[in-house]
Amino acid sequence: MQSPLPHPARDEMRIEAVLSALADPIRLRIVRALADSAEGISCGLLDLGVSASTLTHHVRTLREAGVVRVRPRGTSRISSLRRDDLDALYPGLLDGVLAAPR
Amino acid sequence: MQSPLPHPARDEMRIEAVLSALADPIRLRIVRALADSAEGISCGLLDLGVSASTLTHHVRTLREAGVVRVRPRGTSRISSLRRDDLDALYPGLLDGVLAAPR
Repeated sequence: MQSPLPHPARDEMRIEAVLSALADPIRLRIVRALADSAEGISCGLLDLGVSASTLTHHVRTLREAGVVRVRPRGTSRISSLRRDDLDALYPGLLDGVLAAPR
Repeated sequence: MQSPLPHPARDEMRIEAVLSALADPIRLRIVRALADSAEGISCGLLDLGVSASTLTHHVRTLREAGVVRVRPRGTSRISSLRRDDLDALYPGLLDGVLAAPR
């Protein structure tokens, strides 16, 4: 059984870290994919064209900033967007990012 | 007379560059100050506690990403937020950033 991963509480989240976490094309693709999934997904199933270790780095960056929540399920990890927290702290930010031209 | 500085057109702006430009505490302070000013301000008048060259770097980063417009006025430069462009491309993003707890 995997240990729970640490996540910042809502009041520990910092806008600079959230923006920095979002400011990367691979991480934006992860966020867009998660935005389309109510239940969360295993990011390893996304076809992002990066190595497993690179993917792990990106998901950790998103988790540590408070953008995603990662929970173990069996031997894999399911990521989901922390939309409630992001919308409460920065209303409009996530929707604005998701609306960006690609 | 100073030459006009280059700015990306709206369709040249990239969300990764905008987020990266915003993901810095000094640049966020500049953006907050500009958000309170309809006419724009000379960033050199802001009390940011950084050197002139550091300030120039930060304003350039914001300008090159498309977050601010910088125009010469006499011997100084006036910066203003490109709110219309930001709101058109990323509706809600700027307001979400400005609403962030400090």
